[in-house]
Amino acid sequence: MATNIVLSNQEFKVVGTRPIRHDGEDKVTGRAKYGADFQSAGLLHGKVLRSPHAHAIIKSVDTSKAESFPGVKAVLTGKDMPVNFMDSPGRGAQFASDNIMARSKVLYRGHPVAAVAAINQHVAEEAVALIVVVYEVLTPVMDVREAMKDGSPLLHDDQTTREFGEKTDKKSNIADHFRHETGDVEKGFAEADVIVEREFTTAMVHQGYIEPQNGAAMWNRDDSVTVWCSTQGAFSARDSLAPILNLPVSKIKVVPMEIGGGFGGKIPIYLEPLAALLSKKTGQTVKMVMSRADTFEATGPTSGTYIKVKMGATKDGKITAAEGYLAYEAGGYPGALVGAGTMCIFAPYDIENVKVDGFDVVVNKPKTAAYRAPAAPSAAFAGEQVVDEICQKLDIDPIEFRLINASKEGTRRVDGPIMQRVGNIECLEAAKDSEQFKSPAGGPWRGRGIASGFWFNVGLQSSCSIAVNPDGTISLVTGSTDIGGTRASIAMHAAEVLGIPAEDVHPSVADTDSVGYTNLTGGSRTTFATGIAAHDCAQEIKTKMLDRAAAIWDTNVDDLEFSGGVFQHKSDPDLKMTFKELAGQLNGSGGPISGAVSVNPQGVGAAFSTQIADVEVDPETGKVTILNFTIVQDAGKAIHPSYVEGQMQGGVVQGIGWALNEEYFYSDDGRMENSSFLDYRMPTSLDLPLINTIIVEVPNPGHPFGVRGVGEVPIVPPMAAIANAIARATGTRLQNLPMSPGVVLDALWEKDGKPNG
Amino acid sequence: MATNIVLSNQEFKVVGTRPIRHDGEDKVTGRAKYGADFQSAGLLHGKVLRSPHAHAIIKSVDTSKAESFPGVKAVLTGKDMPVNFMDSPGRGAQFASDNIMARSKVLYRGHPVAAVAAINQHVAEEAVALIVVVYEVLTPVMDVREAMKDGSPLLHDDQTTREFGEKTDKKSNIADHFRHETGDVEKGFAEADVIVEREFTTAMVHQGYIEPQNGAAMWNRDDSVTVWCSTQGAFSARDSLAPILNLPVSKIKVVPMEIGGGFGGKIPIYLEPLAALLSKKTGQTVKMVMSRADTFEATGPTSGTYIKVKMGATKDGKITAAEGYLAYEAGGYPGALVGAGTMCIFAPYDIENVKVDGFDVVVNKPKTAAYRAPAAPSAAFAGEQVVDEICQKLDIDPIEFRLINASKEGTRRVDGPIMQRVGNIECLEAAKDSEQFKSPAGGPWRGRGIASGFWFNVGLQSSCSIAVNPDGTISLVTGSTDIGGTRASIAMHAAEVLGIPAEDVHPSVADTDSVGYTNLTGGSRTTFATGIAAHDCAQEIKTKMLDRAAAIWDTNVDDLEFSGGVFQHKSDPDLKMTFKELAGQLNGSGGPISGAVSVNPQGVGAAFSTQIADVEVDPETGKVTILNFTIVQDAGKAIHPSYVEGQMQGGVVQGIGWALNEEYFYSDDGRMENSSFLDYRMPTSLDLPLINTIIVEVPNPGHPFGVRGVGEVPIVPPMAAIANAIARATGTRLQNLPMSPGVVLDALWEKDGKPNG
Repeated sequence: MATNIVLSNQEFKVVGTRPIRHDGEDKVTGRAKYGADFQSAGLLHGKVLRSPHAHAIIKSVDTSKAESFPGVKAVLTGKDMPVNFMDSPGRGAQFASDNIMARSKVLYRGHPVAAVAAINQHVAEEAVALIVVVYEVLTPVMDVREAMKDGSPLLHDDQTTREFGEKTDKKSNIADHFRHETGDVEKGFAEADVIVEREFTTAMVHQGYIEPQNGAAMWNRDDSVTVWCSTQGAFSARDSLAPILNLPVSKIKVVPMEIGGGFGGKIPIYLEPLAALLSKKTGQTVKMVMSRADTFEATGPTSGTYIKVKMGATKDGKITAAEGYLAYEAGGYPGALVGAGTMCIFAPYDIENVKVDGFDVVVNKPKTAAYRAPAAPSAAFAGEQVVDEICQKLDIDPIEFRLINASKEGTRRVDGPIMQRVGNIECLEAAKDSEQFKSPAGGPWRGRGIASGFWFNVGLQSSCSIAVNPDGTISLVTGSTDIGGTRASIAMHAAEVLGIPAEDVHPSVADTDSVGYTNLTGGSRTTFATGIAAHDCAQEIKTKMLDRAAAIWDTNVDDLEFSGGVFQHKSDPDLKMTFKELAGQLNGSGGPISGAVSVNPQGVGAAFSTQIADVEVDPETGKVTILNFTIVQDAGKAIHPSYVEGQMQGGVVQGIGWALNEEYFYSDDGRMENSSFLDYRMPTSLDLPLINTIIVEVPNPGHPFGVRGVGEVPIVPPMAAIANAIARATGTRLQNLPMSPGVVLDALWEKDGKPNG
Repeated sequence: MATNIVLSNQEFKVVGTRPIRHDGEDKVTGRAKYGADFQSAGLLHGKVLRSPHAHAIIKSVDTSKAESFPGVKAVLTGKDMPVNFMDSPGRGAQFASDNIMARSKVLYRGHPVAAVAAINQHVAEEAVALIVVVYEVLTPVMDVREAMKDGSPLLHDDQTTREFGEKTDKKSNIADHFRHETGDVEKGFAEADVIVEREFTTAMVHQGYIEPQNGAAMWNRDDSVTVWCSTQGAFSARDSLAPILNLPVSKIKVVPMEIGGGFGGKIPIYLEPLAALLSKKTGQTVKMVMSRADTFEATGPTSGTYIKVKMGATKDGKITAAEGYLAYEAGGYPGALVGAGTMCIFAPYDIENVKVDGFDVVVNKPKTAAYRAPAAPSAAFAGEQVVDEICQKLDIDPIEFRLINASKEGTRRVDGPIMQRVGNIECLEAAKDSEQFKSPAGGPWRGRGIASGFWFNVGLQSSCSIAVNPDGTISLVTGSTDIGGTRASIAMHAAEVLGIPAEDVHPSVADTDSVGYTNLTGGSRTTFATGIAAHDCAQEIKTKMLDRAAAIWDTNVDDLEFSGGVFQHKSDPDLKMTFKELAGQLNGSGGPISGAVSVNPQGVGAAFSTQIADVEVDPETGKVTILNFTIVQDAGKAIHPSYVEGQMQGGVVQGIGWALNEEYFYSDDGRMENSSFLDYRMPTSLDLPLINTIIVEVPNPGHPFGVRGVGEVPIVPPMAAIANAIARATGTRLQNLPMSPGVVLDALWEKDGKPNG
């Protein structure tokens, strides 16, 4: 069931329709070219030797046998990595380089130790196996709480904790501890009639994109480098490559291939610098592709976490105080995205007294990366369960409770910003009015869970250029790699402005040499920000075409108008031309028309989602079945509703997997034991009901059509909604992810006693 | 010896310098990717079956054995060619299609009859040999004068002559006969003291580009097609493909590969539509590459010609009348570029009474194409020899004679236009002042020849987009394929405007989806017109950056200025930033800056060249040795003098080859007998002296820096200059090209009698 609740008066011709995406046929017929499809004359193939240990010192690397193996063209080790960036302030660039190729220490199983370029991938694999590495194996630190303890083995001998923004000299695996605070939580808890305090853990999970990481590169003789890869951002990949390769950004050209899923995991670079440096050594183009096991073990999943939440409310349902403690695993190098977790955990509520502590902690696991609304789902799993438990204790309907406390325009977030116009209340009202919520939830072992989610979304820089074709179409170029249909949603912005069908826009995604700076596809920014770039660029084209029409008609441009796709004279009805007619006359009447703009929009619209999960728990197996699921989300304005619904459903589906099955399962010595899609259990269509979607449209005043980002917030509430449903179905509140059958069974047995036990 | 005679007061920092071309290292180290380097996942290879006959009716084509040959994926014949365009007015599109794949009749040896796509080129070659074609062989018509005769076999049964712009019903191989006329030639000849009338012929010659024709294509399921090829114009290739494939232009994306020479010969398409249609049949990408023999026999060389010239002058050296009769071979389909010959033949002279007739004539040779200043060199070979003979008869120095009659600003060309500011006189003066002209020319069997050349140059449409990089460089995108260093010359336009080094501009050549419409690289237009686009786009960037500087400094933009690469406040000396400093601040101060413009410049500057050839003729072998050669040419403003000199020398070298050796040598039955570089004799470095260059700079008022096109005019005078030198060395005037040793000997024997004969 898909519903669309529109709260805007703006009328559209193209926006809000559902044209077939421009890249659709290419992708479903296998013609689209992804990273692994890259081919080039004289192509070499590279392979990486990876550490079998989670924590070890590299004593020596002997590459001699590999180097003399027939067909091998070059071998690369940590010694070959450029070092200039080590002069730069901070250690970010060095950590980034070390993560790509270990110099002296390996910090997780799968950490690269050497790489080989050879005439084909089989030779490269053989040669990699001939490299002899001597390790001094150290005790791995695999859990955030263990890592935080005094006396825990240190991953980085010289790492000291930054505390509240200040560098300390305390050596620790805690890279950073920060706090957001507003009001007086002591006072707030004193005013509460009921207080709930709980601890939670969530397991490390992977984005699970279908296409493994890849990269190909050609290092030219003039030290200019071309890189082909599937990335969420060609320009952000360029920015990341520059310090690691010790080159200015303009010497690097990143050509984005099609991308088979990213979800945040294809923001970092992995193979690209190795391919580039192997190309430098060989003078040939080098291509590298990861296996699935490499992708699990050596790319960035999301943090495993430990979270404590304490919340108090009055008996009439007003939250008086909330406190959070969020400790996130960063993997081998600092940089857990815990900050976003602290921003989001209590954001659905207008609370006077809040305190949230965040911890960025290194452990011997792969360096974490963004994963769709990074850090927020784990935080919501904790925060929304505590809210639900308060509702249970006060016997208040969970939607009513949320409406009582709902954040809205003017609410100050704990991290500072004042909320602009948001759709939190509208989502809650729509959830209350939904078919699922109005249907009965009950039955033995059945329960209904509600949860809210917040994601702030981002703006950042985008560029767009447009050229008018003589056949009445336009070519539209952006730097935004298209993961979820943004070619269509961006094209529709331009089509709306120019009064032409979406099909008459030919969108393409350019390399970094061919379009203005454009930040990554992430932060739910692309349709919003690159959409604005397309809108503004189309306006520029419209202006130039009005000028041209005036020139053709030998009249004043002020006497002309453009509406409904027609250029016309305001008073002379004979002077009118459609967009297509004028386009056909351009080359013969002063030349073609093109334009380009770059934008950095500030009016980012934050997103809310309310979700309803109905579950049934099998008390004999612990298996949780999702019976029905509704997601309500404020899209601001859904440019292409099908892709908004797709984002909503996709986020929920990933959340269901995260809730019920997915986890990095480690042996005691730090070896991931389920690094394949057979053993790492992601949901399939057979595991799921149809996810009902309700799009709420509370227009974002910061976008000409009202758009808010839609890609991330749908994954924030599902784990909490399902946990709340399980709690109501079983009377047991599960505080650890995943809530897999064994975990559920253990919890039931703990509460009710083990049958026949 | 290279000299530069500057007649402008404009001062430049970048323009006029000689930076290394941006694509130089890639090209000399073999990393640049040309058409044949194209690779793709799942690539098929195509081969063409070509007619062994110059003129024949196709009775039947049996492809069954080829189709069932293992590894063959598709076979294409004339029946598969789209036919929709046959509704279009005129037969241009049908002729273009028939030239690419014959339907019912072959009109030259090498004419495609079928094509095969297979898993590799060897299989494709085997399969092509299995196709059985039954021909009814017809008498070929191999010479323009034969073809023009009444009763000559007709290539196109229904072709009637267009006479003076009107369609007639006279069936003939003459497709078109037109005339330019000014004044009264009868009266002019009556006023003459001396009249010279001569007949000339020139042989068909090939551009001889190093890289054979190629094309690859992917036909997507939604009928959008991507084509990779080395072409002189991605957009003109798109325009040519659209009617042949029966698709709107916006469904076609042409990706230009690097191009290994074109000289006009890579304007037409040959393999691209076949690869596209084979891709449509197979669903896979198909690549096709010609052999050298294919390239000679089945791509467009320049016309063989028959030319008559009559000219009269008074005894004090004033030309009173000139008359020309130019009959040009079109090859199998109409479209000889004789028009340009009629425009150029007398253009170096201001003559009151002129009449020129042009004839476009089909013959059973490959359809001709443009070749550097197309049609003008043959015309100059004729016209400039008649001028020289008048000089001899009047005993006037050939430069003095040309100065007496020189066309200049205000001269009306026979085809209509009034000349703007041109450098004809300045070139003649510079030639007179040149080291070579001032040195003695004499000696036994030695002679000096002078000739002038004119080329009108073209403007047409160009587009450019620029994005500013955070490291202070810019990315510059054009649609102009770079044959002779135009990345550098265009980049230098932007660098000059923005006050940055040429090296800080990163130019790239985009596909047709990624930049505004840009006409072909040809007509000597690219540095002129795309340079203006780059200049204007850089001005737009400058304006946006001034606005940004004003925003950063919180001041009024009118108080700021940009000079010497520095943005500064007119009165506050503390407010100043270099381009690089401001570029680094853009993303953090309102976002990146980019821009795009399209132009259609009208102020095209025509080009003149005066050339001096000193030769020695070996009376025993007939071999002509070029002892010394100087080219003087008006470049308007030489943006990158090295590349201007390269164009000048390259044009002369091709002209020397054309003068002394090159020709399509045909058997009686229409078979080219020298279709390899062993037998088709192009000059090598051992055949040539260093060509002295003198660049004259008479600024073109239609370009902001004064640029005129430079690529074509250098090839106009060489054959005439050499013929004039031979005439003065031997006393014998050669009227047929090439003037190869045998021809020279025959002429000497005819004049002096055969020794021992």
